[in-house]
This record gives sequence, structure tokens and C-alpha cells, in this order.
Amino acid sequence: MPFPDTVPAQQTGILISAAGGPEVLLPATLPVPACGPGEVLIRVACAGVNRHDINQRRRGPDPSHRPVPGLEVSGVVVRTGAQVAGVAAGDEVCALVDGGGYAQYALADAGQVLPVPAAMSLRDAAALPEALFTTVHNFFNVARLAPGESVLIHGGTSGVGTLAIQLLSWLGHRVYTTCGSDAKCAMAEALGAAQAFNYRETAFEQAVLAATGGRGVDVILDMAGPDYGRRNVAALARRGRVVHLAPGGNADIALPLRELMRKEAVVTGSLLRPLPDAEKAEIARWLLARAWPVLGTRIRPQIALRLPLAQAGEAHAALERGDLAGKILLDVQ
Amino acid sequence: MPFPDTVPAQQTGILISAAGGPEVLLPATLPVPACGPGEVLIRVACAGVNRHDINQRRRGPDPSHRPVPGLEVSGVVVRTGAQVAGVAAGDEVCALVDGGGYAQYALADAGQVLPVPAAMSLRDAAALPEALFTTVHNFFNVARLAPGESVLIHGGTSGVGTLAIQLLSWLGHRVYTTCGSDAKCAMAEALGAAQAFNYRETAFEQAVLAATGGRGVDVILDMAGPDYGRRNVAALARRGRVVHLAPGGNADIALPLRELMRKEAVVTGSLLRPLPDAEKAEIARWLLARAWPVLGTRIRPQIALRLPLAQAGEAHAALERGDLAGKILLDVQ
Repeated sequence: MPFPDTVPAQQTGILISAAGGPEVLLPATLPVPACGPGEVLIRVACAGVNRHDINQRRRGPDPSHRPVPGLEVSGVVVRTGAQVAGVAAGDEVCALVDGGGYAQYALADAGQVLPVPAAMSLRDAAALPEALFTTVHNFFNVARLAPGESVLIHGGTSGVGTLAIQLLSWLGHRVYTTCGSDAKCAMAEALGAAQAFNYRETAFEQAVLAATGGRGVDVILDMAGPDYGRRNVAALARRGRVVHLAPGGNADIALPLRELMRKEAVVTGSLLRPLPDAEKAEIARWLLARAWPVLGTRIRPQIALRLPLAQAGEAHAALERGDLAGKILLDVQ
Repeated sequence: MPFPDTVPAQQTGILISAAGGPEVLLPATLPVPACGPGEVLIRVACAGVNRHDINQRRRGPDPSHRPVPGLEVSGVVVRTGAQVAGVAAGDEVCALVDGGGYAQYALADAGQVLPVPAAMSLRDAAALPEALFTTVHNFFNVARLAPGESVLIHGGTSGVGTLAIQLLSWLGHRVYTTCGSDAKCAMAEALGAAQAFNYRETAFEQAVLAATGGRGVDVILDMAGPDYGRRNVAALARRGRVVHLAPGGNADIALPLRELMRKEAVVTGSLLRPLPDAEKAEIARWLLARAWPVLGTRIRPQIALRLPLAQAGEAHAALERGDLAGKILLDVQ
């Protein structure tokens, strides 16, 4: 992909045209955004598809978000704004973006742009940002995971799960995980999980307690919403933490207060998208130092499906069916 | 009170004779316990009355607890077990005890025994242990209160509240509190609270947000059980923590998961009684260094009522009515 001398004024992107199913995602001709201070403009090679995009689509157009979904891309830097250092036009990168990923050109804050890892392709690198920023923020910043602590990751074969299992086991943590089928459990164990539990057949909290000699795990990453309130607390060790990264609608979560107190357990969570840019940049530095050297060798994103940008609706439908294991990417150009 | 040369074989204590109201507390003749390794035997001057004692009485006799209630005493050390250093017979002390406080003689782990502060009377010192160990453990160990952070204490004129307000404001924290009457609010502000809110007349979460310019507080100490789940999260700052110290029965607590995540808020709690002895001893060392020098001068326990040991039932009834402000003590001898 040659580095372009010129950037067009217009581009093709996918709009959320209304609240609804995958069919509301429609291609549109849109202006290529201008690069503000601290920003870089990326000619997108691939965009990652995330659960967040589906929630945004279901809610419909929202003045607080860019109308084009997409929170992560890989591609080539074509413009840099004022006050940008360390990233230059022509660089092959991947980045978190604050919406706008499902398009030919996307803006990113320079602090959230990382080089494509040496052992990886430009296209596959689009599978990294959301999963890795999410993993690092929730386990290390929010849950303060300490050396030697054990974890339970719900959804072991999701985009986040497949990378989180690899990163945390590479860092020396014992990783347990839940998946929805025996085949997915086998995949999770192949990625480094000490044990994967099929949540359709096993009471995971009992399985975790059995696997840890009754102690429980130190940190649980939950992307299922409020459903596992009591069961997560049961699976925790003393002073364990449950970190939620998906609200699952706006329902309350019910927790067993006495048991929470008895264990001095913590229930918390985070939303990655509204995190301040400075905090995202700090995570990017952590990743560059700790994860980047082994990406593509020890740690590999699992790509479940690739579809062209125009088939973003099919990509959403596939993620909603939940039968895939790994990441879904859109090929943009 | 002269130091006794002999310790009798038998003593008078208050037994929980059945599950029920204050009338189930009955005096009984009981053996004076023997002093095991690491323990001291205290001839009790006064015993503190706590909500925990009432819950234990309501549940009735329980093989996992000593049959005599009471979690804190002041008195004179009359025997020390093997491996006890730093405490000697004749010392005037106050202590956490693992039950057994409503009696003439009580056993304490030596690590949970503290001298009567220089500026305080032996009798009043019984008002210190539960409230101060609870405050330090929940704010510093569980919630990790940092310098400059603000707090909200529910129940500002409870035994815990009256001492927590004084200790935390003395340490430089801005303290907000809730109380059940304007008179109690005035007392809480006199003790050092920046503002006290009458929860019968004010939506405390709105009042806290107004008082903090919309920011919220960093740590909330909740002794009300699960009732304030949503309102506590509303009153928190980003990365704020709610610490529960009373389960209020066995009901679940309902929390607004999305809002919790948006703030990266933490909901947690603790039970003081089952805390390992080594951790209680660490709290005792913290208290001796940080609080003991100002007890009786800058920080004074508020004694609401004193009754003789034989009237333990009346003491429970008074605490259950909730119209007192401060601590209830039983005079033992």
C-alpha cells in the first residue's frame, strides 16, 4: 500500500442511519476529517468490530458520538496535526479511535497510535487496540492485578478474551475462563488458559473453587453485564475484585452484600471509550513496553472473520449470533 | 481500682439465652476463662455496646461465637498468657475482644490491647476500640483513603460516626455526614464535619453533589445495609469507593452497573470481627501512632448512656430505638 501524496476531500464510510438491526448500517459519502492538534489521520486498512458498535447501532444516531461506528483501526498515517511527535506520515500503525473506524480515513489521538508490531501484518493489527487497551486498563488500572494473582475471564473466545488469556498467562498469571462450547474451551486452553469451563454445562463458580482448592480467584473480568453478580462473588478469593466492562443494558446488578463484606470483595468496572486521552496514552506506553515485543510471536490475535467494509451489517449479525471465536475485522482498502 | 492478687474461678456475665428481644439477655454465673498463649485476661471496668451485639442476640445462641456478647472493653490486665510482650498485669487498657465483653473478666488477643490514652479515663476508654478499629480498617485498609480525599459518613452520631468524623477531620480529610435529626446534624458539625445532612429531609446524594461542586466524595462509609446502593454511587466522585460495614440482614444490594462503570466506582465492605488477629494488631499499631496522642484532647468519644451490666437489655433497647447520639457503655465494676 503506497503512501499517498494526496488525501481526497471525500470518502466512503458506514453510517448508523437509524436505531435498529444490522440493516441500518448504510454506506455513505462523507467528508474526510481535518487533522486537529494532537491528532493523526489514518488511511484505514482494516477496522475492528466490537460489541460497543452493536450497542451504538441499536441505540441509533446520537449527537454525543460520531455517526460512523468503529473504535479501532489499522492503516497508514497520512497527515499529522500540530503538536504530534513520534508518529509521522507513512507510518504503519494501529490505533484506538473515538468512533469513525468504519471508513476509509479515521482520526486518532496521537497518544493512542501504536506501530504495527514487527511480527504482524498491517491488516491483523486492527484486532489489537480495543482488546489490549481493555485488558490492560481493567486488570492493571482498575483491578490492580498484582504479580502471582489468578484471574477468571468470562467469554474466553471473544476478541478481548482471546488476547487477555494470552497476555495474562504470558505475564505469569494463572488464567481460568468460561466459554459457551467445548470447542471454544479447547481453543481457550490452547491459548494458555489453565482451565476453561463450558458455562452451559458447568456452574463456573463451583468449578473455579474446585480448581483453586476452595480459595477462588483474585480478579474476574466480566463482559456479561449484571447476570453473574452472586456467582462472581462466590468465585472470588478474599479481597478479590470483579471488573465489569459491559453494562448489558441499564439493569441494576444484585450483589450478596454480606458475602461481599465477608470477603472484602470489590465490585467495580470501567468504560474504555470515555477514558481521558492522557490515561489512554499511558496504557499505550505500557503496551509498547510490555506486550509489543511479543505480539505476533507469543501472543497472536485470533481472527474469526474478515468481511469487506460494505458488509459491516453481516459482520454485526455474525457477532450477535455469538458462534464465532475471535475477532471480526472489516477490510477497508 | 486496686490490682487484684487473685482471680476468682467464677464471674457474672450476660448470656444470650435465646433468639429474641432485649429480654433474652440474662445474667449468669460463668467460669473465668483461662489465658492461652498470646492472650491477656482483663478485669472489665466497662464494656461497649454495638449493633453487632444486637444482631447476635436476635440470631440467638450460635456455636461459632462465645455465648457472652460484647466486642470491646476497658479494664485492668490481671493475667497474661505465654508469648505476650508489651502488656503486663496491672496495666490499664482497652481492647477489642472476640465476644465475652459483657462480663467481669474478658480475654483479649494481646495484639488488640491498647493502653488507656493519657488524657482519658479508664471507663471512657471502652468507647474506643470498635469505633476506631472499624474506622481505620474500612477507610485505610479497604477503601485506601488517600491524603486530601473527601468522605461521606452515614450515621454521623453513631458510636463509629462520632469518632470517625473526629479522626478523619483531624487527619485533614473533608468529612460530610448524614444524621436523622437537625440536633444530631449540629452535633456532627461540632465534632468536625464540614456539613451534616438530615437524611429525613434532604436527598443526601444531591446535597453532597451540591457541596462538592458536582464532583462527589471519594469514600463513603455505609452502615445502613443495602438501602443506599444507587444513591451512594450517585454521590461518589470518579474512582470513589463505597465501603459497607453492616450487611443489614441478608438482602442483596442493587447497584446501577452502568453508572458504577462510568465512574470506575468501587463497592466493597468488610466485617471486623473475623479479621485475622495479625491484621487487627497492625491496626492497633497504626492507632497507637496516629490517634492515641490526641485521644481525650483533640478526639473524644461521645458517651450517650451508661448503664450497669445487669441492665444490658435496656442498653440494647436504647440502641435499637436509635434516638441517642454517641456510644452506650455498660459499667461492669
